[in-house]
Amino acid sequence: MNDIDIKIGVSNRHVHLKESDFKILFGENACLEKSSDLTQPGEFASTSKVLIKTLKDEIPNVRVLGPFRNYTQIEISKTDAFKLGINPPIRESGDILNSEGIKLIGPNGSVDLNEGCIIATRHIHLTNSDIKKYNLEGIKYVDVLVDGLKGGILKNVSLKVSDNYSFEMHIDTDDANAHLIKQGDIGKIIRRDV
Amino acid sequence: MNDIDIKIGVSNRHVHLKESDFKILFGENACLEKSSDLTQPGEFASTSKVLIKTLKDEIPNVRVLGPFRNYTQIEISKTDAFKLGINPPIRESGDILNSEGIKLIGPNGSVDLNEGCIIATRHIHLTNSDIKKYNLEGIKYVDVLVDGLKGGILKNVSLKVSDNYSFEMHIDTDDANAHLIKQGDIGKIIRRDV
Repeated sequence: MNDIDIKIGVSNRHVHLKESDFKILFGENACLEKSSDLTQPGEFASTSKVLIKTLKDEIPNVRVLGPFRNYTQIEISKTDAFKLGINPPIRESGDILNSEGIKLIGPNGSVDLNEGCIIATRHIHLTNSDIKKYNLEGIKYVDVLVDGLKGGILKNVSLKVSDNYSFEMHIDTDDANAHLIKQGDIGKIIRRDV
Repeated sequence: MNDIDIKIGVSNRHVHLKESDFKILFGENACLEKSSDLTQPGEFASTSKVLIKTLKDEIPNVRVLGPFRNYTQIEISKTDAFKLGINPPIRESGDILNSEGIKLIGPNGSVDLNEGCIIATRHIHLTNSDIKKYNLEGIKYVDVLVDGLKGGILKNVSLKVSDNYSFEMHIDTDDANAHLIKQGDIGKIIRRDV
């Protein structure tokens, strides 16, 4: 079977908030204002930013994405984790049980989280129609080849299926910087493990 | 042919200095004091640190390695390069012609370099005896497999041969953090391109 070209999006550290945490951080009457649309339909970068803080260190200006979710989740890179002195697990988005705790500080208040901080699994968004088109039925993880002077193969890339999704791979800044991958670069899905 | 196990060392950003630059940075009578030996014979981490600076930003406490070389070279990661707002080329150590400029600041003075800042090519140190043992004659680059939740294959890993070398792979912190590789982890050399 031919390799499958896949567009790559690079996710910088970011925060998803539940509405009650947003109100604590930004105020009861604040609203989550869209700054720009993201590739996945309905998802957007907001104009809001928070500072994330641990006992060891802090990182300011971490972007809040929208819309609200029913849980608060902070996605960082391993490089960020070393700076902050924490050890977040590698997880699918939404799987935050017993993940790392962290403190969020906004202009109106702060939230101390016992869990919610993860390093996101490399993943590909695709639809059931893409699954059929590319013969990926029954596949949970793929490998993706990227070219270049620091090219390589990213393994254990999970497939996230929804008929609402736009076909795109998401990696964090560590994966991007290690392989010199820029936003919009093209990789190749080269293997499928059932 | 069987895969070849290779121990991995992670190189944080660091500086090699020519003696004249060291004297400007640390003083005419300063000496380059060993803090700890590195794996490669004769190489050591010194007790000296410099601040590296660009128009955009700076990074303090960058370790000076010894012994002196006949050129000054700064090795950083792509993550560092974004922070500093510069675009160093991917180069073998010592190949600094037309690489990025950067400013070094020490306790005694500063040096403005027109070139010298690179992102080091992933590489493996080995001896001619290792070359024979592992049947790597005529090979310049290999691929190395690393396991784990964010495992993968690092491509274009150059082979650096000297009978003084200890068999070890060196990667930067971006490669390490992207793949969750720790100092001393074992990879597998899986392919050889002539």
